[in-house]
Amino acid sequence: MSNTDLTARLRTFARERDWEQFHEPRSLLLALVGEVGELAELFQWRTDEDIRELVAGRESRRPVEDELADINIYLVRLADVLGVDLDGAIEAKLAANEAKYPVERAKGSAAKYTEYDQ
Amino acid sequence: MSNTDLTARLRTFARERDWEQFHEPRSLLLALVGEVGELAELFQWRTDEDIRELVAGRESRRPVEDELADINIYLVRLADVLGVDLDGAIEAKLAANEAKYPVERAKGSAAKYTEYDQ
Amino acid sequence: MSNTDLTARLRTFARERDWEQFHEPRSLLLALVGEVGELAELFQWRTDEDIRELVAGRESRRPVEDELADINIYLVRLADVLGVDLDGAIEAKLAANEAKYPVERAKGSAAKYTEYDQ
Amino acid sequence: MSNTDLTARLRTFARERDWEQFHEPRSLLLALVGEVGELAELFQWRTDEDIRELVAGRESRRPVEDELADINIYLVRLADVLGVDLDGAIEAKLAANEAKYPVERAKGSAAKYTEYDQ
Repeated sequence: MSNTDLTARLRTFARERDWEQFHEPRSLLLALVGEVGELAELFQWRTDEDIRELVAGRESRRPVEDELADINIYLVRLADVLGVDLDGAIEAKLAANEAKYPVERAKGSAAKYTEYDQ
Repeated sequence: MSNTDLTARLRTFARERDWEQFHEPRSLLLALVGEVGELAELFQWRTDEDIRELVAGRESRRPVEDELADINIYLVRLADVLGVDLDGAIEAKLAANEAKYPVERAKGSAAKYTEYDQ
Repeated sequence: MSNTDLTARLRTFARERDWEQFHEPRSLLLALVGEVGELAELFQWRTDEDIRELVAGRESRRPVEDELADINIYLVRLADVLGVDLDGAIEAKLAANEAKYPVERAKGSAAKYTEYDQ
Repeated sequence: MSNTDLTARLRTFARERDWEQFHEPRSLLLALVGEVGELAELFQWRTDEDIRELVAGRESRRPVEDELADINIYLVRLADVLGVDLDGAIEAKLAANEAKYPVERAKGSAAKYTEYDQ
């Protein structure tokens, strides 16, 4: 699904229910924080191995899928309410990352990760 | 941009730099938490009015766009690393929300928001 | 309660249950993120007015108290596991804030908040 | 330092600078989210081993100390603004945890962590 499509669907969903009044920027950000917190709770006592095992099963990965979806939904709705072109912002960020970490230099060093120099 | 396209681009970006080794589930989740924190810092002392004003200007909204993009990037990368079909998860969630909050009932009451019954 | 006392009590609690093995730094941070997310969920659809009303009632404020306590508990436990002297860190921070925002200058301008210059 | 002392010092700090007007519940929560995000950024590309190494050095652990202090400061300030007795809430929570996870049962099973049954 494109962000454009999801944006339109969420807009319709809110309008039909007269819920636009509740979708203030700070409210949507806090809702996003809440969903990230729920994902963190799924991961908190697990190692990366445990997490891979959790998402390997069709049933067991459901809660993880739900939280990822919720985060995406609130993110896209927040961007829309703010009038931000999310795709444009992502394109700009990807271009900036390409320029910041050119393949030839990044590959050898991986300094971003091993020197924590961000 | 579709989540499928973004997934592919992020996968290539990581592979070209030999960075896949760093993209463990918990690391990506913490990176996501970090970006959400940065967005929170942009909003923290502002009212919703202030925030709307901030995003009204092409230059002043840049930092907000950057954080929203970063959140989306880490979210899509995390879903990919977990083997989660993000679009499928979103479709399932939208369908569940339609069923949970039918227009005719949700419109009148808005109980989700005013009674905080989630 | 002092942080020293709480640290000691949490240490005993974990040791008695043989739970020290689970209290790795990243696990405790994710648990903290989870609790902050739960507090965000209590606030998300409420205005500051609504929140004040919520915490005005002895019964209705219970969930807020629980989340604040959980955040404090994981924070103090995390600091202990990291070997950080939390009180010392707080004292250092308070001193730094006093130096950074001297009363005579901060009072007039409140630039930290109104110019968002942090 | 006790929470009571820290509460009093933060209250004086805010009053002297005429900053009480900015310390609304949602603003303080977002500030807390921002500080948790900064701590997450320190941890994100590190293993638990790396983190232990980071906090082993007096200089290298400074940023971690700063973020832990900031989280504690905003948490205590938020509790105060909400009129919540943080110590009382912690005592109640500790008692609830003692009852929920009695030593004799918790020790053998550690089900909280290994069965993720929270």
